[in-house]
Formats: sequence, C-alpha cells, structure tokens
Amino acid sequence: MQTPLKIAIVGSGLVGSLLAIYLKRAGHTVHVYDRSPDIRTIKFSGRSINLAMSHRGWRALDEVGLGDQIREIAMPMDKRAIHTVGQPLNYLYYGKDGENIYSISRGVLNRKMVSLAEAEGAEFFFNTRVWDVTMATATLHTGETEQGTWDDRKYDMVFGADGAFSRVRHRMQRQNMFNYSQEFLNTGYKELNIPANPDGSHKLDKNSFHIWPRRDFMLIAMPNLDGSFTCTLFMPFEGEHSFEALKDKETLEAFFAKYFPSTTDVIPNLVEDFFKNPTSSLVTMKCYPWTYEDKVALIGDACHAIVPFYGHGMNAGFEDITILNQLMGQYGDDWKTIFEEYQKSRKPNADAIAELSYRNFMEMSSDTADASFLLRKKIEKRFSEKYPDKWLPLYSRVTFSFRPYSEALALGDHQKAIMDEVMATEGIFERWDSPEVEAKMLELLQK
Amino acid sequence: MQTPLKIAIVGSGLVGSLLAIYLKRAGHTVHVYDRSPDIRTIKFSGRSINLAMSHRGWRALDEVGLGDQIREIAMPMDKRAIHTVGQPLNYLYYGKDGENIYSISRGVLNRKMVSLAEAEGAEFFFNTRVWDVTMATATLHTGETEQGTWDDRKYDMVFGADGAFSRVRHRMQRQNMFNYSQEFLNTGYKELNIPANPDGSHKLDKNSFHIWPRRDFMLIAMPNLDGSFTCTLFMPFEGEHSFEALKDKETLEAFFAKYFPSTTDVIPNLVEDFFKNPTSSLVTMKCYPWTYEDKVALIGDACHAIVPFYGHGMNAGFEDITILNQLMGQYGDDWKTIFEEYQKSRKPNADAIAELSYRNFMEMSSDTADASFLLRKKIEKRFSEKYPDKWLPLYSRVTFSFRPYSEALALGDHQKAIMDEVMATEGIFERWDSPEVEAKMLELLQK
Repeated sequence: MQTPLKIAIVGSGLVGSLLAIYLKRAGHTVHVYDRSPDIRTIKFSGRSINLAMSHRGWRALDEVGLGDQIREIAMPMDKRAIHTVGQPLNYLYYGKDGENIYSISRGVLNRKMVSLAEAEGAEFFFNTRVWDVTMATATLHTGETEQGTWDDRKYDMVFGADGAFSRVRHRMQRQNMFNYSQEFLNTGYKELNIPANPDGSHKLDKNSFHIWPRRDFMLIAMPNLDGSFTCTLFMPFEGEHSFEALKDKETLEAFFAKYFPSTTDVIPNLVEDFFKNPTSSLVTMKCYPWTYEDKVALIGDACHAIVPFYGHGMNAGFEDITILNQLMGQYGDDWKTIFEEYQKSRKPNADAIAELSYRNFMEMSSDTADASFLLRKKIEKRFSEKYPDKWLPLYSRVTFSFRPYSEALALGDHQKAIMDEVMATEGIFERWDSPEVEAKMLELLQK
Repeated sequence: MQTPLKIAIVGSGLVGSLLAIYLKRAGHTVHVYDRSPDIRTIKFSGRSINLAMSHRGWRALDEVGLGDQIREIAMPMDKRAIHTVGQPLNYLYYGKDGENIYSISRGVLNRKMVSLAEAEGAEFFFNTRVWDVTMATATLHTGETEQGTWDDRKYDMVFGADGAFSRVRHRMQRQNMFNYSQEFLNTGYKELNIPANPDGSHKLDKNSFHIWPRRDFMLIAMPNLDGSFTCTLFMPFEGEHSFEALKDKETLEAFFAKYFPSTTDVIPNLVEDFFKNPTSSLVTMKCYPWTYEDKVALIGDACHAIVPFYGHGMNAGFEDITILNQLMGQYGDDWKTIFEEYQKSRKPNADAIAELSYRNFMEMSSDTADASFLLRKKIEKRFSEKYPDKWLPLYSRVTFSFRPYSEALALGDHQKAIMDEVMATEGIFERWDSPEVEAKMLELLQK
C-alpha cells in the first residue's frame, strides 16, 4: 500500500478519468482539472471518431472491475465490411472466432468514466484552466485568463492527461534536453452520421467496421448502441479529391454518388452535416522524457498522440495506466523509480504504435480493396490457425494480445518479409493453400 | 523597388542584424528587438563556439559590400590539423589552393554587425522582451514580465530571427498543422581557451582548424585575431567519458593529461574555465511552415537550428537572407509570394544541412583519426583535381560552392557509395593512385 498523497490530474478525458479511479483505489486524494465544462452537461462536438476498444483497453477496465459496465455500452465488431464500387460486400474477419473489437462512442464513454471516477471519490474541477505548472513543487496555476491573476494549487504530484496539446507538457517542453516532435498529416477528417431505422435497428451490418476504401481517401462507419453509425470521412485537405474541392452542395453530392453510391440511402443529412461539422486534423506527437522527478508525469495522448488508423489511441493510453499501476505495486512509495521505469517501459511501445498507426492508413484506404492483400491475409489466417505457436498475425498481436507494441512492430516486419516471398511464388492465387506454400513458410520461419 | 514598410525583426544576432541591413537597403523602416542588453556593452558568455564563415556567408556580406570589413576580423583556415596521441600532427586540407574557411569570434562579429546595421539606419530596442506576436496584424507584445502589462507594437511585417528557442515561432507553433521537432544530442560542449603567447603570436598553427578526435568525444580549437584560440570540448553528458564524470580538478587534469597531452602546455586555465563555463547542449530543430501570409517569417536558427559540426549554422542563415533578397527583387511588393517561395526554396536545404551537420560529428570525432578515411580523402582529392567537372568533394560542395545543400547531400551519398566500392579494392593502400583505381571510379560514375 502506498502512502496517501494529494494528486492532481489535468484532463478529464478517458485516460484522466480512469487514472483517477486507479489512484483513488490506491488510497490517494485525487483532483481532476479540465478547462472544458463537465462533458455530462454538454452536447458532443460533432468531431469525434468512434473508439475501438480492444484487449489492452478491456484489461485496464477489468482490473478495477469496470469492464462489464462498459461492455453494456459497446458494440462488438468481429470483421471489416469492405465496400467496393460495383462489387459485393466483402467481409474480412479481425481474428479468431469470438475475437471482437468494440465500437464505443467517445462521448458516451467519457460521460460514464467521469461518473465512475466521481463515484470512486475523485473530485472534479471543470471550467478550470491550468495555464502553467511549477514542476519542482507540483503546483498548478489556474485562472480565468492567461494574463490575469492566477491561483496556485499545490499538490504532491501532477499527472498531465491533457491530450495531444497538453499544457503540462508545454511546461516540460521549455526545459533543456526535452525531445519533441509533432507532425500533421495532409489528410483530415470529418464526422458524418448514419441514423437508425425507424424501428431502432441498424441500416448496415451492426457487427462490422465498415470501410469504403478509395486509395487516397476513405469513409468508415462504426456502429452505436442506438442503431446509428458514426461515420468518418478521411480525405486530403487539398488536391483533386479533397475537403477543399468539396465546396458546395452539388459537388459534394456528385462526389458521394460517384465514390460512395451505397451510402446515398443511408446518410440522409450528408450536406447539412458535412458543412456544419468541422474538418479536423490528425497529428503524431512524440516526446521524451515523460516525467519530472517524482513530481510530474505525462500519460496518454499528452505524451504519445497518434493517428487513429489502428484504433489504439485510447488502448495505448489505458495500457499506460496498467503499467503504471503494476509499477506502483512493485515499488511502493518510490515514485522516482516508478516514474523512471514507467517512461522507460512505455516510450518504445508508444513509438511503435505510432508507427503502426501511421502505416495503417495505407492498409485501410488502399490495401483492403486489393485482391493480393486479401489473399495475403487468407494465407496468414490459414497458417496461423494451423500453427498458432508459430504465427500470430500482426493485427492480432496488436489488438488481441498484451505483447508489447514494439514486439508487434518488429515481428510484423519480419512476417511481412516472409509474406513478400510467399506472394512472389508463381501461381500463388491458385496454390495459396497448397502444401508447398505451407512448407515454404515453415522454411522461411526457420531462417 | 519595394513600397516602404515598417518592419520588426525579433533578435539582434548575426542573422537579425544582417537582415536589418538588407531591409534598410530595400527602403524599409526597420526596428530590431532583443531581450538581451546591447552585445557591445557586455562581456561574452563563455559558451560560444567560434564561427567558420565560408562561401555562402561571404556572399551575403559581399552583396551589401560588407565582406571586406568582416574579413579584417577573420582568420583564414585552409586545413584541419589533426592531433592524435603519439603521432605527428596530420594536416588535411579543406579544398583547393586558396580555399579557406574563416574563423571568427561570434561575439566580435555580432558587435560589428549591430554597429553596421545601426549605421545603416536600423533602430535597435535592447532589453525588450517580446512575449507574443499577433500574427494577423504583425503586432509584437512586449513588456517587463510575461504576466504583466504588455505594450502592443504594430508593424507591417515581423521577422523572427530569434534563434533556436524563438518566441515568434512559439506563437506559430500553436497553430494547427504546424510541424515541429526538436531533438537534443547526448553530447554537450564547453568553451575553453588557448591564450596568445606573450608576443601576441599563436601557440599553434594559426591557419588550421585544430581537432583532437577521440571517438565519442573531441576537442577543437579555432584561431582568433589576438593570438588566442577558442577551444570547444564536445563530450557526452553522462557515461565513462563525460562531463558528469569530470567532477573535480584531479579527475579533469588526469583526463586531459591522458587524452589531450599536447594541450597541457597551451591551456593554462583549464581547471578554472572548465568549472566556470557552462556545459551547453546541442539541438536540431526543424519546423514548417516558416511564414504566415505576408505578415510573419522565420529566418535562421529560428526555423532551422542545427548542430555545429559542419560549421554552417550562420552560413545557412545568411543564405536565407540571400534567397529572400533575390525573391524581393523578383516579386517586388508581392510579399505573399516572396514568403511562399522563400520557405519552399529553403526548407529542403535546411533539412539537408541539418542531416549533414548531424553526420559530421562522426567524421570529425572518429574518422579523422582513421587511416582508411584519410586515404579516402586523398583518392577523392586526386580524382577531383584531375576531373574537376566530374567530382566535387562533398565538403567542397557544401562549403566552397553555392550549390543547394540538398544537392550536396544527395550527391554526397552517391559519391560515398562509389568510394565504398573503391575502398574495397584489394590492396587499395598500395594502389590508390593507380590507373586501375582511376578507371574504376570513372566507370562507377558512368552508371
């Protein structure tokens, strides 16, 4: 058991709220600050992408007994449903039978998490802007305006769970020897919506992650409990197929009719939503160190913001909490060691999931429409079912295992090299399930 | 001729001062702000590395007729003098006969540049902190403290020439879609000094850039006009050979006696200077965009801070001014196009010199002590003298030419691949100047 401390968490998002629960369970006093109003009292912004909770996320929730409550607001998805113009719907299963990822509305989950943290005894300070942090004394500086008078709020420890544009990190960044990078994609995104049928049922298969892959742009749809789908259009900001090019109602409707004909019946508010909802940008942010002595630590997006194409932003943030909690059990009151081991353990994994997420845009938007890619997946699946000890597909290692992301990245590259050779086999489309191909894979794995 | 504007430059360093001169010549009103006191009124900090002015730097000065005045305070260096323990001094010439780089004290040059800019009619505001910039209106916000009352100073245009930790960039960085990275080396540096002889002469060859390469650390010395040398010790912060390890007088003296025996007679104030002067860090900073509409532009270290191992930080910053000035001539009052073309033209070159500078630490600290490296240079030099149209060595292309840095990086990689093959020739140490080796290089160049 740890000596009770007074701990501030900046940010009441998913990671901030769950961390609050863990720290309360460990016996600490926990204050959570957020510049925004209580998310339970406001309408969502129309700029969110549904979450895809998977093994790592569930582990963090189950560890504190909250998994079942959250499963009630989650929609299982066992496959991708790939919509290609002029071709029948193609289903691509994510893992083995019974392996699902779970679609959850970010807003619904965040509201629930704040309530759970409050019930646990964490105290929330909404509409409270933290402008700066004095790291040596774990003191937050809050106030109405950046230039106005500030209140000082002294703690034993501060966690920055305040997202990709973290104010806490901003202070760390001014220190010497702080490595930092932020890189924006030229691709942005916009939220759209497929409403439920009048009887509350879903208009598309409700246990699928729907993708309309169109190479440099794509549309996705993820199911909600209420029969609707949250859709996201990913597209370059500028160029031939771009947000900039879709300037008016006519252009927009013609574009959707041409590239997403199967959606015209199911997205009734296309024009209104498209021009009302903001176009958001996508950033990869990396930094190091993540901690300052035993006083300040960054967690979640505040220290590793990634693009959403692997669906692992929240999962990675929740895993930060799992690892931190393990280290708290291991090192007790030695927070300096806890923080040091935490950042050393998490940094390579954060970098790995950043890389995997960045690469996955190509897989989602292009490869899923490609026959050779689909065959590759089929060969891998067959082999992996026959030799589960020898081959765990990359997606499964990332999503349905607790193996480190860094291991997934390295082994994934190794598997890709093997599959490149296998796919170069003459007549692979006919011989893909032949004993020779299997023998070749076994041989290549031996090397 | 351009329509006269009211322009603010933040930063009175080398790039800020020279830019002020160029903008005055173009007919503008120029105000230069600096948070520090007038450099002409204070002692230098003991944390600077001498500058190595080369072709690009001289071009920017000569263009406004200042080259000759600066040449008076510069020491030509035509070679590296390599100090290896137990071996005679080895000279490695930089370029062709008459090609020199020029050692200049940063402080001496900066004082001179400020005076020249003032004589040109630029107005300087020292001890004035710019806390923020409103980009849309090119307004500087200055004041005593960040939280105190600010004055607004409105201009037509603002240049951020305020270095690696630029406050102007800091504002741009908060914009959406601003790419940014800062990465620190684990190697730091410290200034030391070799004083002049009593008669004012130099204790070491005065036309050499002196290097004591010791693999993971190195000492360099660059001559000053007054007979002294400014030395810089580059060494990891932590580890076996590190600043951290040199904790006291005894350890320091034993370390220098072992690794730099030839310096014991010439650095009399080693102990005092070592513990008095700060240990500074080295950062590579990249960002994009560099400009905001026709209102704000970054220049020099503020948009491309590099490590000092190619001696090109100032040269690259001065070349920014050359290019900007060319574009001013080309596009007149169309500052939006000037800024757009400026950043598009300079960004790939800034990235290239950043990469070359980063790589050059290895060359300076390790390779210059390596026989195979020295032979490689000898073969290149011989071939380049015989076939000047076919082979310009990388160092010469970077330092003694105006070819784009990006071209130097790309061609340098190509040349390296050729030299790798040449060096793999059997008996190359004996046959290096044979017709066969020459034929091989010609053949490899054909490919």
